[in-house]
Amino acid sequence: MDYRELDGGREFVARLEHGGDWRAQIERFAADEGVGAAFFVGLGAVRDAEFYFYDQTEQEYYPEVFDEPLEVAACVGNVSMLDGEPFAHTHAVCSREDGTALAGHLNAGTVFAGELYVREFDAELHREHDDTTDLDLWPL
Amino acid sequence: MDYRELDGGREFVARLEHGGDWRAQIERFAADEGVGAAFFVGLGAVRDAEFYFYDQTEQEYYPEVFDEPLEVAACVGNVSMLDGEPFAHTHAVCSREDGTALAGHLNAGTVFAGELYVREFDAELHREHDDTTDLDLWPL
Amino acid sequence: MDYRELDGGREFVARLEHGGDWRAQIERFAADEGVGAAFFVGLGAVRDAEFYFYDQTEQEYYPEVFDEPLEVAACVGNVSMLDGEPFAHTHAVCSREDGTALAGHLNAGTVFAGELYVREFDAELHREHDDTTDLDLWPL
Repeated sequence: MDYRELDGGREFVARLEHGGDWRAQIERFAADEGVGAAFFVGLGAVRDAEFYFYDQTEQEYYPEVFDEPLEVAACVGNVSMLDGEPFAHTHAVCSREDGTALAGHLNAGTVFAGELYVREFDAELHREHDDTTDLDLWPL
Repeated sequence: MDYRELDGGREFVARLEHGGDWRAQIERFAADEGVGAAFFVGLGAVRDAEFYFYDQTEQEYYPEVFDEPLEVAACVGNVSMLDGEPFAHTHAVCSREDGTALAGHLNAGTVFAGELYVREFDAELHREHDDTTDLDLWPL
Repeated sequence: MDYRELDGGREFVARLEHGGDWRAQIERFAADEGVGAAFFVGLGAVRDAEFYFYDQTEQEYYPEVFDEPLEVAACVGNVSMLDGEPFAHTHAVCSREDGTALAGHLNAGTVFAGELYVREFDAELHREHDDTTDLDLWPL
């Protein structure tokens, strides 16, 4: 695998705003603070969630929308630059009232409550188009 | 979203004790070590799990108990102060023998085995009642 | 619980190689870089996944193979030494096209794409056989 050693930057804890979008808030924070490379983990709850499932053969994203309250049992993601703007690549595992889990690439979700730990790196990571997967990945 | 930059404190790796409670052990550790702000991630297995699902309309927690052996595929949480004591807000994704996942706010679970990484911050975070959600959240 | 305070070491971000094995790549990286203690989190997608479910009564691992494309919604694990080699204890939560989640101890999985954050510690952790669980755990 390709990897890069990075120097640690700032560390943040955050409380996502009730009623706002989970991913958009992380991106606005990153833009405001000038975060160009970070990983984050988090937990909380959403009122709804839109996952994107990537069809590895068709190489297209297909949305899967759950318009119901869900716990966010685990959120793992990162921030890097895409087309000149911070992009929060966000995956999440959510759960229903009966405990069953739904998970994937979280495109959007209306926050009920959310808590994040953001580990910034003293670097800027850039996503570029990767021909093999048709995804925007890091050339490390 | 509201956020705060924090200075990093100590870092710990931990092995949860077989037969003890997953969350209570984290809180005892935090009390013993004087940890007033931290995030943690972990993995392992439990003999049983009690999740709390938060009804966003009723604003009440409802327990969902699974009295069966489960893998802990992912655990994400944090430590902060609630009513003068360290509280470990703990979410987890568990799985059954057939691989299907159960997830949510982990109130309790009897540890079979567990491994944690704890990132302390050089600060004390306090939870206070939030009227909108009826949850105890951080005023950052 | 048993725990140890560790000094932080290097920090890495990584891009897993398309077509390679998820866990084996982490172990090769750890061997190449001399990483003897670390925690990691990650996200991505795999073409297939083999989970090991540990039967807590029989104290045996049973494989559960999913030969289908899956998102990796959350991956949490650590690196420590087992029999003189770096071992990547890797748990993951995956999801199918309909959003339903599968999770557990990830023994193997063919990477479609993957991104990791690795937090090394300035230490070497060793796994040793634990009689109670019949697992290889850390004596901390």
